[in-house]
Amino acid sequence: MIPFEHYLETRKEAVETALYTLLKPQDDAYKVLFEAMNYSLLGGGKRVRPILFLSTLEAFDVPLDPYLNIAAAIECVHTYSLIHDDLPCMDDDDYRRGRLTNHKKFTPAIATLAGDGLLTVAFEIIAKSENILPTIRLQLVQILAKAAGPDGMVGGQIIDMQAEGHAQTLSQLRLMDALKTGRLITAPLVMAGVIAAIDAEEQAKLAALGDRLGLLFQIVDDILDKIGDEKQLGKRIGQDEKQSKSTYVQLLGLEGAQERAQLEAQKAVKIVSKLNLQNTYLAQFPDYLLRRTM
Amino acid sequence: MIPFEHYLETRKEAVETALYTLLKPQDDAYKVLFEAMNYSLLGGGKRVRPILFLSTLEAFDVPLDPYLNIAAAIECVHTYSLIHDDLPCMDDDDYRRGRLTNHKKFTPAIATLAGDGLLTVAFEIIAKSENILPTIRLQLVQILAKAAGPDGMVGGQIIDMQAEGHAQTLSQLRLMDALKTGRLITAPLVMAGVIAAIDAEEQAKLAALGDRLGLLFQIVDDILDKIGDEKQLGKRIGQDEKQSKSTYVQLLGLEGAQERAQLEAQKAVKIVSKLNLQNTYLAQFPDYLLRRTM
Repeated sequence: MIPFEHYLETRKEAVETALYTLLKPQDDAYKVLFEAMNYSLLGGGKRVRPILFLSTLEAFDVPLDPYLNIAAAIECVHTYSLIHDDLPCMDDDDYRRGRLTNHKKFTPAIATLAGDGLLTVAFEIIAKSENILPTIRLQLVQILAKAAGPDGMVGGQIIDMQAEGHAQTLSQLRLMDALKTGRLITAPLVMAGVIAAIDAEEQAKLAALGDRLGLLFQIVDDILDKIGDEKQLGKRIGQDEKQSKSTYVQLLGLEGAQERAQLEAQKAVKIVSKLNLQNTYLAQFPDYLLRRTM
Repeated sequence: MIPFEHYLETRKEAVETALYTLLKPQDDAYKVLFEAMNYSLLGGGKRVRPILFLSTLEAFDVPLDPYLNIAAAIECVHTYSLIHDDLPCMDDDDYRRGRLTNHKKFTPAIATLAGDGLLTVAFEIIAKSENILPTIRLQLVQILAKAAGPDGMVGGQIIDMQAEGHAQTLSQLRLMDALKTGRLITAPLVMAGVIAAIDAEEQAKLAALGDRLGLLFQIVDDILDKIGDEKQLGKRIGQDEKQSKSTYVQLLGLEGAQERAQLEAQKAVKIVSKLNLQNTYLAQFPDYLLRRTM
């Protein structure tokens, strides 16, 4: 096995190769839309969700080639969520990944439509991936749409927005993060599980692993918003406090949040072992997500 | 055959029955999102697109029951497009169908998310319609996503936005309207054609019919924005002029636009006859769309 950092690089490259040729306009009359979609889609990022998808496939010995476009579709949905989340009427952020946010580089109208376009095209990409069995493709559409939709990420965004300026309990915070962050980290694992045709018991374990990784991701996000390096992060820190948002750091204290993150990482490792995947790259994600600084 | 007006009423009722029970939150923590989605989804409207879908099915003798949720999904996508189109950063409209627009009734943030939620849930609904063959469902997702996406409606919205304050030629206007309005009127016809398993030649005729009906719909929209009744329309007229938008009325004059609309209706009727569907309700849509006052 190659070192994990190197593995991440190669998989990231595979995802970006798929992304680079994904979106081209059929007519120049609306090419600025594609420029805006590609500005955010190709503007860096860790590619955590599509790489989690690929790593899970590999853990179950599924060849990656037929599924690179599915990985790209997952990243399209994630990118749409960032563009809309940054909008002036939402979090009103000026920077993302060290560059101007989409609506600052273009306009709020273009950014809204670029997000809409990325979300829509994701489902078209999955539906037309003809080298994948029809019943599998349908499950992929369903899982991704449910995770991103009103009872998933969009629902979590609403809770987030309503919570601004109000104190949240830990269980309210947990629900919000499970929806807002967790669902779109769980979806790639479960989508890979469907492709690998694993049984229902294993699929439930993958979903539980996704929940842990999602929570871990969010706690670390909260910690980085408190003590992260703005240059590395590519965005301003202290935004949660500024917006009076409840976070794990605010509710548990910095040390408490760090302990909780470690605990979630340990639980995630345990689930990976129960799945008998301790010798795969997937097993290294909990530690990677715990240690990330950007 | 029952009179067409009565037929429209019954099919509208069937669509609305499907819509009424479609969206319920799994958790009350984000119920305002579902209130916002349902506010626009259940707030009236002619239901032209889902009824066109049902009428095309019936024209080919396909029973409607298994496909009512697909009709509902089509209306979800249309409703999302209206909510986002009305946003302050887009057309900034205060009224729609005689009621406050979504962002006026709620907030721009909630309206953005309500649109996102409706778009996403539409694809989930289609993907999980288990009484429809998997390969058919996949084609429905593909057709709807392509029609609504960057090379369809979203692309048309970008042209629309960029055209504000600039004069457009008739061919630029034609492309914009084909994408912005036409694609989502053609999609229901073609989706019904896929379900009815008609041959490629007939499918091409359905697509051509959709193009004509879409253009007709848009020309009448332009005419109504000039001389329509604000009460009946449920929104302010004169918006195109105010936003210095090129329209058929502006480029051809009111009479010229009316003649063009009649011509498109005649062409549409001709295609219906070529499809040998002149004795179906589908054949009455050109005249209905030509005469509409709201």
